[in-house]
Amino acid sequence: MKLFRYGPAGHEKPGVLQGEQRYDVAGFGEDYNEAFFATDGLQRLAAFVAANAGQLPVVAAAERLGPPVARPSKILCIGLNYSDHAHEMGLTPPTEPIIFLKATTALVGSCDDIIIPRNSVKTDWEVELAVVIGRRASYVEVSEAADYIAGYMLHNDVSEREFQMERGGTWTKGKSCDTFAPMGPYLATPDEMGDVNNLRLWLTVNGEEMQDGNTANLIFDIPFIVSYVSQFMTLLPGDIISTGSPAGVGSGLKPPRYLRPGDVLELGIDNLGTARQVLKAYAG
Amino acid sequence: MKLFRYGPAGHEKPGVLQGEQRYDVAGFGEDYNEAFFATDGLQRLAAFVAANAGQLPVVAAAERLGPPVARPSKILCIGLNYSDHAHEMGLTPPTEPIIFLKATTALVGSCDDIIIPRNSVKTDWEVELAVVIGRRASYVEVSEAADYIAGYMLHNDVSEREFQMERGGTWTKGKSCDTFAPMGPYLATPDEMGDVNNLRLWLTVNGEEMQDGNTANLIFDIPFIVSYVSQFMTLLPGDIISTGSPAGVGSGLKPPRYLRPGDVLELGIDNLGTARQVLKAYAG
Repeated sequence: MKLFRYGPAGHEKPGVLQGEQRYDVAGFGEDYNEAFFATDGLQRLAAFVAANAGQLPVVAAAERLGPPVARPSKILCIGLNYSDHAHEMGLTPPTEPIIFLKATTALVGSCDDIIIPRNSVKTDWEVELAVVIGRRASYVEVSEAADYIAGYMLHNDVSEREFQMERGGTWTKGKSCDTFAPMGPYLATPDEMGDVNNLRLWLTVNGEEMQDGNTANLIFDIPFIVSYVSQFMTLLPGDIISTGSPAGVGSGLKPPRYLRPGDVLELGIDNLGTARQVLKAYAG
Repeated sequence: MKLFRYGPAGHEKPGVLQGEQRYDVAGFGEDYNEAFFATDGLQRLAAFVAANAGQLPVVAAAERLGPPVARPSKILCIGLNYSDHAHEMGLTPPTEPIIFLKATTALVGSCDDIIIPRNSVKTDWEVELAVVIGRRASYVEVSEAADYIAGYMLHNDVSEREFQMERGGTWTKGKSCDTFAPMGPYLATPDEMGDVNNLRLWLTVNGEEMQDGNTANLIFDIPFIVSYVSQFMTLLPGDIISTGSPAGVGSGLKPPRYLRPGDVLELGIDNLGTARQVLKAYAG
């Protein structure tokens, strides 16, 4: 199953994608949030869709897509989880996962504008595979981690490198700006994904290829990451873990290249669709 | 006004404190969450309390207190914001605020148990003054910051120092464990606080004084912090910013001292009441 949310920001309705067709499931009466995932929402939704086959309203292609998950309790990210990216950043690949939190206020839809923050000079891109948690997870074993995964999404872990690296302290300042977490177009359940350890992920800037990686090169794989994070905090249904970015970010280029108003990002991951984001200056 | 939430975890009801007496305001029909703060809830609650003076049910003293704010979108903390604490940690006082996020799943009531995580060897304490945001805040000027503050709370920014400092990456692992954000007993509105730049804050372990500081020694004061954080992300109503801890944490002692099951923390801040937390081993 592939789930999306559509409509104006903050007022999204739920939908399901079948083939290339988007269907409205507002009649299901729930949003894709913590309560939905916590109460076997995916199974109940599948039953609803089956019971209403042929009768679901079609969603117009022009409708805005929101993030596929309604505000989760947290967005966690894994830093430097592809060795080629660690190398381009001039950093040693980690011996255990680097975890950081991204403010949930950064969450936007897959084709929403990315706003370059006031005083930003180093806004950068990072295509990533994001995992959505399906069940409350605490001290989960690696062997059981798959049971805690509701699905996957395409994520651009937008990052302001000066805020992240040169303004003191942790990475929070450069990772949490509004619009810095475009997510989607949709959430795909694991049965839609094929082998998650062999997914191509790519990103272009103004049509020029910048990132072209494969999840086969993750330093820490997805079951390990879910288990690892759950040793430090409880993951709630709907929480997001973004698994890191391959090489090809702007700050790793020589000379570095950062985003400007008008730049267009396109990105995609096998079986998770594509996204397109236009950069805009902060306008107050 | 002084607001609290009481009852079983996850099912708290709202209350107000008047003098030493706790009153139930479940009849007001709202929880102290983002929607409450965003819709002038404090003013509406004050009117409700005035209109029902003498008729509000008393809350039994034995009732558990929950966190005074229902799950905020984020808990931000300011690191090393007292120079004596930076010094004891062997770190240079920052030239601009250090920001980090603490998972909201860490939030508990002021007298709930603190669970020492599995494999923890360096669980530590940090008494802090926490600010609650009252209005959506983005790029706020220092001179206007006070308008964005709903109130203040006592916070113990519990920290696992090995997870924070020795496990790679950012501080997230050591700051976000379940029960690591005991908050309260209550939220006090600014008119209840006196001079927030001259509040004593203290913490004892098993009755022995460990921290005894004063907010007069904050490196970055509260209006500056609110303004500063709002340059990097939008703060939502109900969001929490914890302003840093004075000297006297366990990891700063020579030799360091860390918490064990059975240890009892007591802490307080002028005009914000006191809290008491018992350390427990993780029991699965």
